[in-house]
Amino acid sequence: MADDVTAQQGSKVSRRSLLAAAGAVTGGTVLARMPRAARAAGRSFDAEADVIVVGGGGAAFAAAIGAAQSGTRVLVLEKAPAIGGTTARSGGAYWIPDNHLMRAKGVKDPKDDAVKLMARLAFPSVYDPEAPYAGLDRFSHGALSAYFDLAPQVVERIERAGVLRSQIAALRPGQIATGGVDWTHPEYHAELPENKAPYGRTLHPVDAEGGGGGSLMSGLATFARKQGVRVLTGQHVVQIATNEKGEVVGVQAQTPQGERLYRARKAVVFGSGGFTQDRSKVMNYLRGPIFGGCAVPTNTGDFIDMASQLGARLGNMRNAFLVQHVLEQALANSSVVDDLWIPPGDSMIMVNRFGDRVASEKTPYHEHTQSHFVWDTTRSEYPNLVQFMVYDSGVANDPYQAYGMPYPRPGTRAPYVIEGATIPELARNVERRLDKLRGRVSINGAIGPDVRLSDGFADNVQRTIDRFNGFAREGHDADFGRGSTPIQVSWGGPRRRGNDKNPSMYPISGSGPYYCILIGGGTLDTNGGPVVDASGRVLHVSGRPIPGLYGAGNCVASLAGQAYWSAGGTLGPAITNGFTAGENAIGEPVKEV
Amino acid sequence: MADDVTAQQGSKVSRRSLLAAAGAVTGGTVLARMPRAARAAGRSFDAEADVIVVGGGGAAFAAAIGAAQSGTRVLVLEKAPAIGGTTARSGGAYWIPDNHLMRAKGVKDPKDDAVKLMARLAFPSVYDPEAPYAGLDRFSHGALSAYFDLAPQVVERIERAGVLRSQIAALRPGQIATGGVDWTHPEYHAELPENKAPYGRTLHPVDAEGGGGGSLMSGLATFARKQGVRVLTGQHVVQIATNEKGEVVGVQAQTPQGERLYRARKAVVFGSGGFTQDRSKVMNYLRGPIFGGCAVPTNTGDFIDMASQLGARLGNMRNAFLVQHVLEQALANSSVVDDLWIPPGDSMIMVNRFGDRVASEKTPYHEHTQSHFVWDTTRSEYPNLVQFMVYDSGVANDPYQAYGMPYPRPGTRAPYVIEGATIPELARNVERRLDKLRGRVSINGAIGPDVRLSDGFADNVQRTIDRFNGFAREGHDADFGRGSTPIQVSWGGPRRRGNDKNPSMYPISGSGPYYCILIGGGTLDTNGGPVVDASGRVLHVSGRPIPGLYGAGNCVASLAGQAYWSAGGTLGPAITNGFTAGENAIGEPVKEV
Repeated sequence: MADDVTAQQGSKVSRRSLLAAAGAVTGGTVLARMPRAARAAGRSFDAEADVIVVGGGGAAFAAAIGAAQSGTRVLVLEKAPAIGGTTARSGGAYWIPDNHLMRAKGVKDPKDDAVKLMARLAFPSVYDPEAPYAGLDRFSHGALSAYFDLAPQVVERIERAGVLRSQIAALRPGQIATGGVDWTHPEYHAELPENKAPYGRTLHPVDAEGGGGGSLMSGLATFARKQGVRVLTGQHVVQIATNEKGEVVGVQAQTPQGERLYRARKAVVFGSGGFTQDRSKVMNYLRGPIFGGCAVPTNTGDFIDMASQLGARLGNMRNAFLVQHVLEQALANSSVVDDLWIPPGDSMIMVNRFGDRVASEKTPYHEHTQSHFVWDTTRSEYPNLVQFMVYDSGVANDPYQAYGMPYPRPGTRAPYVIEGATIPELARNVERRLDKLRGRVSINGAIGPDVRLSDGFADNVQRTIDRFNGFAREGHDADFGRGSTPIQVSWGGPRRRGNDKNPSMYPISGSGPYYCILIGGGTLDTNGGPVVDASGRVLHVSGRPIPGLYGAGNCVASLAGQAYWSAGGTLGPAITNGFTAGENAIGEPVKEV
Repeated sequence: MADDVTAQQGSKVSRRSLLAAAGAVTGGTVLARMPRAARAAGRSFDAEADVIVVGGGGAAFAAAIGAAQSGTRVLVLEKAPAIGGTTARSGGAYWIPDNHLMRAKGVKDPKDDAVKLMARLAFPSVYDPEAPYAGLDRFSHGALSAYFDLAPQVVERIERAGVLRSQIAALRPGQIATGGVDWTHPEYHAELPENKAPYGRTLHPVDAEGGGGGSLMSGLATFARKQGVRVLTGQHVVQIATNEKGEVVGVQAQTPQGERLYRARKAVVFGSGGFTQDRSKVMNYLRGPIFGGCAVPTNTGDFIDMASQLGARLGNMRNAFLVQHVLEQALANSSVVDDLWIPPGDSMIMVNRFGDRVASEKTPYHEHTQSHFVWDTTRSEYPNLVQFMVYDSGVANDPYQAYGMPYPRPGTRAPYVIEGATIPELARNVERRLDKLRGRVSINGAIGPDVRLSDGFADNVQRTIDRFNGFAREGHDADFGRGSTPIQVSWGGPRRRGNDKNPSMYPISGSGPYYCILIGGGTLDTNGGPVVDASGRVLHVSGRPIPGLYGAGNCVASLAGQAYWSAGGTLGPAITNGFTAGENAIGEPVKEV
């Protein structure tokens, strides 16, 4: 996936003067002019296209495909040495309400209910099904409504065009069927009354369930190249170029070959990812502390800085699509390849440093991760910043229990698994591990002085285990409702032999060895950034579009608010709105330079 | 406090063309040029000053006083019809570490510890006393260090100049002395090991303790006018004007008389308050839902929109200085005059809709309010969005218990107090009140369908009361440590006769009547915005200052991060950094237009 195209070298100006003109690195007093200083009046460009797409993941390539219709010349600029972005690391699922495969089976997904479901989860503090726009502002409600309409159309169109073929997500090995037509992969919020279609919205590329993000990207990229889309990698776009009228006419990039100025005759579409890997932005915007994210290392929120200089309105900055990580993996590299998802294992609990459970361990990852963000108003600390996943040898040694992250396969070892013959010994070994990690930092989480087990931790964990074991024997978790929704049992592995109650819980053994994995909060990626309209146009603070500037995916304000609707909740909007943005970019007038 | 000055009317251009030039309201394709389009090349200004200050509260007037030295001409532009801002509504306290009054008494406030205390509270997820910069980034740590040095100097200087005289906060009527020199008003985090000066940092204007914000403002404004500072009210600044070099040369304002363009020869200093009263910004940035704020209605974060267009870096956007409100007052007007502070009353608890306590009711307001932000990962809801303050007639009828918000004075009634002869009756009346409020919205909080008492609420409240009463009899709150820090007992009214244990708790009576007040989360104001350096200069995303642009107070990124250090934690930095910004603005070169 190296450069497809060698950038044109026919510049009339030296690299140095171009750099000075752009004002990107030089000092002085022209700062407020930077965006316009980068405009190209009278200067040569290094390359030209009708539409430039910045980014190389799912949103970017969907935009490229959307734009590369009817002979439009499209240039993709990716910051990393290879395309793929965070999409290539993902499960490759896309959440498409009322999709053609549901309809083919006669499954109904009434719009009014689906939009209410999205609204409730996205903006719960103002959601009101009886109010106009369900309590949301008109703009946010309109975005949800437009998504419901657009998503199935876009997926059908790209299927018909031969970009990819979709299937409805199937069971993973060992998953438990929980009913509903003949799909058994439930929605993460199947239990809500607004959810009239608890099965069928999550799609995957055919033959790519599981590690399907690579397949998805390869499908998108292969098709884009067939359509004549040019792709350049190693292009760190640092500035948006505007003409005298303030219209967007191109971008400036730092490349291994030096600065480059690229002309976009019609528009620039950003699909450049979130800001998970920028510590400062996470600290200033995100509502809780994290140690890592699936987001690739290049996802530093560059678009926020660039678009802000053009007066773009920012939205949804406090939110992210959230997931838990193995703490020690996140401390080693904040761009974490593996996630916790909904962890399997029945004889397993997660506790905080006081030895208390804080949530159902089977809550979907986005919800579960928010337990790390709780601020203890009495102690002035994040008591759940690091959580401790404790399990017994029944889970550790059973291939059907320990079939996925974070457990090492039975018979293998992982350096992040801490062992102890007894709970007190386990606690001592955990404390030792924390001491070894003390002072380590990743993004805006640190193993600071407060991250230590409380006095009496081992005793309290034993009490917590006793209480959990009682719940497991009864089949009912009176504290957190573990296993009470379809998704909480769907991903949990097969029912343990002899457990005819709640399959998500089984009493933790009275004898060791016991195991513990340290868990930290993280993201798939953040999803705040410039606000776009339903056409994908970036809006100025005045509410009007910035001419020639589009965006989609995790680099713009997500319409999902604080929610992650279900599996594919990131890529569904990224692909739908990426494609739409690209397609609308074709209709832009050619801008003068 | 009407206009001191009639704006010069000698404009060579019509209102209409000026408006078009500024691009503020007209449509079209010049959006990205707005900041520069407002520049004044070749145009007449309506008024001119060396330094323009935008805003009319504590930060703004401190800046005006700082700038009005050595004959500098200063013009203050306030959006509201009168000056005062949120400062005039406040208690008027300012938190000044190592201040001259402490030193006069021989009280030590070692810098290293004080900076660590500030760092710990501001950035708890990364704080590490052993790490370089205490685990913070160098910039944030530098800001804290600079504040420690600057704050006492500024206060001493403005005292010597005759602006105001300070005293160390004294007991309120009925407050309980808790030790330490001869001041008895403890720090909110006196218990932390980093806090080597648990008494003395909070100052008030002499003779103005309590409702001292008005006194403070009047002192600042009177002095400023004596120095020749001109003040215009009704000036809604909507645009920052820059010259060809991108230097800030003035502002454009909407006024009752039409659009005005004001020239700032040297600099513009913003002290225009936070964004509490802008629902959209709160929804997009703040980390939890609120129903109101003390912030005056004009605090809609205008500076964020304006400075973003000049490429300003934003910081601390997720945070605010937080406080609780009487819900029904906030629903009536999101700009709330009264706050809950640390509520008095011993036979009083606060519970959520399930009837559970969620925090120590005596936790300082900023901490306590964060309990409203907890997201229930199992139920997908904000379970503590609305809280229920339940108390008995012992509190209601005792003038020493019910001496302040939210209690009506004994013998008087307040419409927001709900009564019941028994707990079940109280619960029924609360449910009825919630039904009456159903559908009401304020900022990003609503009385939506989930805001209702759970089944079994009354029974559970009784269980919660029984448990609380046991704690009260023992003098120890095993759940939330109520009364375990100096501040939690200091503000609680005098010890109840017959209570020789923890004065913050007394068993709730076994017989009615009982009372309930609905409580919602809110702010003093938000405190995120453009990032400024220790000189008060607004920084571009590149890290360099934007020439001629300064800021202080709640309109810029607070150095306090997620903390509210103690009483006066807002005004201390606002005054210190406002004065500093104003003083530094004098040294700016005159900008060409």
